[in-house]
Amino acid sequence: ITMLGMICVRACSALVGFRAPTCVRSLHSFPGITVAQIDEEVAKLLELKAQLGDDGKTQFVLKTPKGTRDYNPKQMAIREKVFNTIIRCFKRHGAETIDTPVFELKETLTGKYGEDSKLIYDLKDQGGELLSLRYDLTVPFARYLAMNKITNIKRYHIAKVYRRDNPAMTRGRYREFYQCDFDIAGQYDAMIPDAECLKIVHEILNELDLGDFRIKVNDRRILDGMFAVCGVPDDKFRTICSTVDKLDKMSWEDVKKEMVNEKGLSEEAADQIGEYVSMQGGMDLAERLLQDHKMSQSKQACAGLSDIKLLFKYLQLFHVTDKVVFDLSLARGLDYYTGVIYEAVLTQAGTVSAANEAQNDTNAEESVSVGSVAGGGRYDGLVGMFDPKGRRVPCVGVSIGIERIFSIMEQKAEASPQKVRTTEVQIMVASAQKNLLEERLQLISELWNAGIKAELMYKKNPKLLSQLQYCEEAGIPLVAILGEQELKDGVVKLRVVATREEVDISRADLISEIKRRTEA
Amino acid sequence: ITMLGMICVRACSALVGFRAPTCVRSLHSFPGITVAQIDEEVAKLLELKAQLGDDGKTQFVLKTPKGTRDYNPKQMAIREKVFNTIIRCFKRHGAETIDTPVFELKETLTGKYGEDSKLIYDLKDQGGELLSLRYDLTVPFARYLAMNKITNIKRYHIAKVYRRDNPAMTRGRYREFYQCDFDIAGQYDAMIPDAECLKIVHEILNELDLGDFRIKVNDRRILDGMFAVCGVPDDKFRTICSTVDKLDKMSWEDVKKEMVNEKGLSEEAADQIGEYVSMQGGMDLAERLLQDHKMSQSKQACAGLSDIKLLFKYLQLFHVTDKVVFDLSLARGLDYYTGVIYEAVLTQAGTVSAANEAQNDTNAEESVSVGSVAGGGRYDGLVGMFDPKGRRVPCVGVSIGIERIFSIMEQKAEASPQKVRTTEVQIMVASAQKNLLEERLQLISELWNAGIKAELMYKKNPKLLSQLQYCEEAGIPLVAILGEQELKDGVVKLRVVATREEVDISRADLISEIKRRTEA
Repeated sequence: ITMLGMICVRACSALVGFRAPTCVRSLHSFPGITVAQIDEEVAKLLELKAQLGDDGKTQFVLKTPKGTRDYNPKQMAIREKVFNTIIRCFKRHGAETIDTPVFELKETLTGKYGEDSKLIYDLKDQGGELLSLRYDLTVPFARYLAMNKITNIKRYHIAKVYRRDNPAMTRGRYREFYQCDFDIAGQYDAMIPDAECLKIVHEILNELDLGDFRIKVNDRRILDGMFAVCGVPDDKFRTICSTVDKLDKMSWEDVKKEMVNEKGLSEEAADQIGEYVSMQGGMDLAERLLQDHKMSQSKQACAGLSDIKLLFKYLQLFHVTDKVVFDLSLARGLDYYTGVIYEAVLTQAGTVSAANEAQNDTNAEESVSVGSVAGGGRYDGLVGMFDPKGRRVPCVGVSIGIERIFSIMEQKAEASPQKVRTTEVQIMVASAQKNLLEERLQLISELWNAGIKAELMYKKNPKLLSQLQYCEEAGIPLVAILGEQELKDGVVKLRVVATREEVDISRADLISEIKRRTEA
Repeated sequence: ITMLGMICVRACSALVGFRAPTCVRSLHSFPGITVAQIDEEVAKLLELKAQLGDDGKTQFVLKTPKGTRDYNPKQMAIREKVFNTIIRCFKRHGAETIDTPVFELKETLTGKYGEDSKLIYDLKDQGGELLSLRYDLTVPFARYLAMNKITNIKRYHIAKVYRRDNPAMTRGRYREFYQCDFDIAGQYDAMIPDAECLKIVHEILNELDLGDFRIKVNDRRILDGMFAVCGVPDDKFRTICSTVDKLDKMSWEDVKKEMVNEKGLSEEAADQIGEYVSMQGGMDLAERLLQDHKMSQSKQACAGLSDIKLLFKYLQLFHVTDKVVFDLSLARGLDYYTGVIYEAVLTQAGTVSAANEAQNDTNAEESVSVGSVAGGGRYDGLVGMFDPKGRRVPCVGVSIGIERIFSIMEQKAEASPQKVRTTEVQIMVASAQKNLLEERLQLISELWNAGIKAELMYKKNPKLLSQLQYCEEAGIPLVAILGEQELKDGVVKLRVVATREEVDISRADLISEIKRRTEA
């Protein structure tokens, strides 16, 4: 039996990672098992091995799919902190939350993303419906509104989206990544919800403490009006707009070259655009452009400029104009924007690396700008695309660039001497002598029942030193030490890990003492 | 132009849901647009329509994929409450959390789920790796441990998993659903982590207040030993085990019939099994079976029985034995269990509907029992399947049946006269007269900055009545009313929605007054 068992074990290890359960089951030693049965098992395993056509080495690749990653507990702790800050802000503004499936009917996504549609992940046709993984949260949101005939909602949605992009994981670009959207849908008076979206960006970036930032604002109607009055042909609006969008990474000279040489725009039109897109300011600039002899010829541009004025008035009441700049070069990529658009960028030196990273970034939406950490705008037509009767539900929203924020927070955590705690454990229940497992279990049970976050080592007789070391490593601030003497005296020795101070606390007072000492 | 515009609009509405962006853009009225350009646009649209081959009616289906659903804000509020309770418990026990991608390499999932592999969602081969959506959280966890060579961790993971099962959505069974797993990995002394898992189930079910419950406990080794001593041939262990698993939905007579008639077991063996699987008890039963002349012949069974004894000893120290029963008929479906297994069931009348639902449920893992709301066990072999050297990392864990719990909580919420709030808004900033939008914006900004959850209506001049009605509907407890007089006096009229009581509060005291009145 030993010999055969060994063969079996060897066959088994060759198969590890393939079908080990078969092996493991065959190795169970049952009373009454016969040599013949083992022979049979071994034969089965060898046959299986032959079928696999392998030479005894496993070909098994232990990795996550390309462009994806696991989050370890430390990353999760940072992620949780960032999410909590953002969600707190969304809730402060009265947002509800919804969730949608990770995949949609393929046709729901069709025709919404232009050229980027090639980046959509499709599911295999296994019979039934054709499905695709969601590409963003905005299209599912619009589908949700139309499907449920909802005309008013303020909601946030935090979930993963999927793009078969060329991942650049060292630069924080993944194929699976979080989006973090806040949107206000409904027919309301001009610029009130739009202003709230900017207030939210301001609050979140302040609270996350990522350094100084600017929020650039523009309006799709101003851009379109500007193109019209500068003599850009209608059918070149989109392509010229996407060239303008590169101004945050390219010089004006290069942008102009692309317009004229590649896109066939007249030099005169390009120069006129160049004048406008260099303009930055506040309400005063909007005022000035409303008087501009050329710009004022476009009704569209005027409507956009009036709204920008109104927006700035509301932003003044919110005391956030210090960070907001009306910037005519801002031209966000997405087709579905119909009104105001905006984008927040970090302006500090610490984001230079992010700036360099963005250089090779060709995805219009993601690469929006150097250190871009939030963006959004008004999209009044999208929901209507899903409604059988084309009923429009005006929407305005903002997406927080959570992955870039994660990266920055992770870098900050790495640079900080303070360790990131991955649990919130307040106390370890330890023993100073042997044979006190039962007493530890009893005590920790009392603590759990009182809502105290507590751990113990899963050993019958752990050494006191290793229990204390565990606390140091995990950042657990307190230890409740049980020993023969303490049990006799009806006390627990409470040790403060940082100072090594120890004090006897009566069992009756222990819970309130722990709570007192660990109150945030 | 009007005529052509109308044609364009009509063509456009025929295309709604397909390519509206083209339409929307074509409808922008630019200064300088010519009739010829509009003609061209109309022609393009009609051509597009012809390509789509539709007769003017949209074929667009507005739905989520089969077996999936959106969560509306009310469902999300309930979901959040349940998650918070569960996460609080996991954190109280010192668990970290991790996250893994929604899809894995196809080969990672291969050979882990036996027959159920046919239920795995595969992604379309779009070049690159072959991918599948995760089927549970346990296999990705094992892959994560092996890949990162982690030998000790206590972690929870709450995420969606995917199964191409026959959905029974009215009965709470979906193709996309949450799993909520807590696992302890590491080489520890027997039964200490196992006992903690049961303590956790006890705490969560108590706190969720779902009614009375029982936690059934058994051990894979006791089952296997029992089969061996009852004369079940080795190669029939699995299939007989899955028949035993049906005892919670079928009578013993029917189970016996299936064993003898369908699975070809001898009547004598079946009867012997029947004697054992009718046994329920506590530590005493384990003690008695250790003396049982037949059972004691199996070393495996003895090892399992000794561990059950030890488990009960620890559970006594946790004061949870009132809910725990050692039940020899418990036989959880999953192949990978190697030691103790357990399952929590609701025992109250309120769960009868759940009981009926389970009748047609054929999925071994999901259908575990009438009103089953948690389950798990020890699986010491799974991580080794992913390790190139087959190194084992013993694991024990529990999965909370969160979807069933959601259903129950939703039913309870429906039945309750108390409305589920979908936001946490504390106060609405309202105006009693016209032309006070700016004052409202200024005040709400102060409140937001002070961390108060506040809303206003996005209208320049909303009616006071409609503002108050909104509060009633949304369950907002307070209203800050601004009027000319209040502004003159430097106060805000604070109204309690429930009692209609109103009191003037000075602006300086407003924030502390709101906090005082809305403290939970």
